[in-house]
Amino acid sequence: MKGIYYDGKDALYREDIPMPVQKAGESLVKIRMCAVCNTDKEVRKGYRPDFRGVMGHEFVGEVLDSPVKDLLKKRVVGELNAACGKCIYCKTGRPTHCNSRRVLGMSDKDGAFAEYMTIDTDLLHVIPDGLPDEIAIFTEPLAAALEILTQIHISPDKNAAVLGDGRLALLTAQVLALTGIDLTVIGKHPEKLELFKPFAKVVTQGEREGYEYVAECTGSETGLPSALELVRKKGTVILKSTYAGKLSLDMSMVAVNEITIVGSRCGPFEPALKLLLEGKVKLPPIELYDLMDFEKAFASRAFKAGFTV
Amino acid sequence: MKGIYYDGKDALYREDIPMPVQKAGESLVKIRMCAVCNTDKEVRKGYRPDFRGVMGHEFVGEVLDSPVKDLLKKRVVGELNAACGKCIYCKTGRPTHCNSRRVLGMSDKDGAFAEYMTIDTDLLHVIPDGLPDEIAIFTEPLAAALEILTQIHISPDKNAAVLGDGRLALLTAQVLALTGIDLTVIGKHPEKLELFKPFAKVVTQGEREGYEYVAECTGSETGLPSALELVRKKGTVILKSTYAGKLSLDMSMVAVNEITIVGSRCGPFEPALKLLLEGKVKLPPIELYDLMDFEKAFASRAFKAGFTV
Repeated sequence: MKGIYYDGKDALYREDIPMPVQKAGESLVKIRMCAVCNTDKEVRKGYRPDFRGVMGHEFVGEVLDSPVKDLLKKRVVGELNAACGKCIYCKTGRPTHCNSRRVLGMSDKDGAFAEYMTIDTDLLHVIPDGLPDEIAIFTEPLAAALEILTQIHISPDKNAAVLGDGRLALLTAQVLALTGIDLTVIGKHPEKLELFKPFAKVVTQGEREGYEYVAECTGSETGLPSALELVRKKGTVILKSTYAGKLSLDMSMVAVNEITIVGSRCGPFEPALKLLLEGKVKLPPIELYDLMDFEKAFASRAFKAGFTV
Repeated sequence: MKGIYYDGKDALYREDIPMPVQKAGESLVKIRMCAVCNTDKEVRKGYRPDFRGVMGHEFVGEVLDSPVKDLLKKRVVGELNAACGKCIYCKTGRPTHCNSRRVLGMSDKDGAFAEYMTIDTDLLHVIPDGLPDEIAIFTEPLAAALEILTQIHISPDKNAAVLGDGRLALLTAQVLALTGIDLTVIGKHPEKLELFKPFAKVVTQGEREGYEYVAECTGSETGLPSALELVRKKGTVILKSTYAGKLSLDMSMVAVNEITIVGSRCGPFEPALKLLLEGKVKLPPIELYDLMDFEKAFASRAFKAGFTV
């Protein structure tokens, strides 16, 4: 089959990838659409040096075979972390943190940039009728934004800032805006900031000590130091960005000013599907390419780029 | 009067310090006992370069004059932050974070290492009868430990570790232990660790990813990186240590593992007085010196050193 394969050095378009074989509990999924995430770009740069296989984890597919017969022919999205079910994290409701987890397109499991994929059936979520592929493809990143609401209490009578104006920022900002909170988005790109205007104030420079919550969504290592300047004392910084390397930080200031820093990653799919179906979260169109043209999708400066398969 | 004075370069014993003069709303307090905090040592090292005046903020005193007549002749302890009452922090229940605050013995306000002191009357707390000076002197540091319980929910069916075996660690560990939680104290000094044995497991090496809560009480810059190794994914690190300089940290790991870091500082006096009166928190004796011998108190390796005045 066709697919984008990581060989330990770079991404390659191949047409000779063997068809995946279902293991016990797995479903076979025909990929309809898949999308490039920043993590995929990090994989190309060596973020997961031991990984070899089909890349990608954001997808919309159709179930061709499954131990759960109700799923047959259904359109689905899927979570990326396949957990062991036995460790302390799995037994205490934290399967996305399982130390033995396999991760679609990243760790010990072929991903979604291909014609077919197998996946643990438990990880699948049926896409409601009426929700087109072009919107459903945003389920995973919207779930990651919703993770914030599972972690901390956002009080709508306070105020919040989102730092960044990219994809992660747009989804995070909308999730925060749905609480009704006074929201400011701080970004550098006037054309991107336009997208935020329907639900937030947009500025290019934030107010020092101005916000009770600051969501750091820049994807850059300069984001957290800025967030720590913008947040009020006793306020909360939500840390969404990941990048290679260490940061130099004045952590005594965090102690003295009683700042809370909350790391935040993957989140719940069902509320994401619900909000997308209800049209509560607005998204720009995804730019789609053939798998063969994967370099264009990876290089795209569109809000979101991906593949029809 | 006699006192320990910071002249911008070092601490000096002086006998010619002018008697303090009460301002509106202030009480005049005769100091009975005061204690050296690590912050006082930091002040000597230049932590508050603009400060000139009497040092010290941990004290037990007797009210000689006050606008609140019920306080006359009462034994008192006092909070160290005098807030403006008007700013965003004062108006939202965060007066200890007031940007215009004056701080006893540290910022724009003479402190407690002297025969007499004036203090905002609102900051005073009456010491209950039956609570001796030698125990009441621990109110402020115990309040700082109790601050943790005002900030986060400690669930007693989880487990916790305290990193460090000094004063801050002993008080923090006891506050955590009072929830009934499974508690491990990780320290380097076998003789200090003895004090923790009545209410905690004591070890010299913690378990990697072993604890849901890790309270970083080492006072050292090596503490936080260790705490981040000890805490479970989705767990919480409580940051109590302050020190000069920046730390190099892998903050992507904090995002990916969804760690929460909570800075924690000054806390509530009344529950501290209550726990001390009830004997729920055990403390080793304080080592007391004359003010003239302040260098001995500053150099003491006892659990706590201070002055009788």
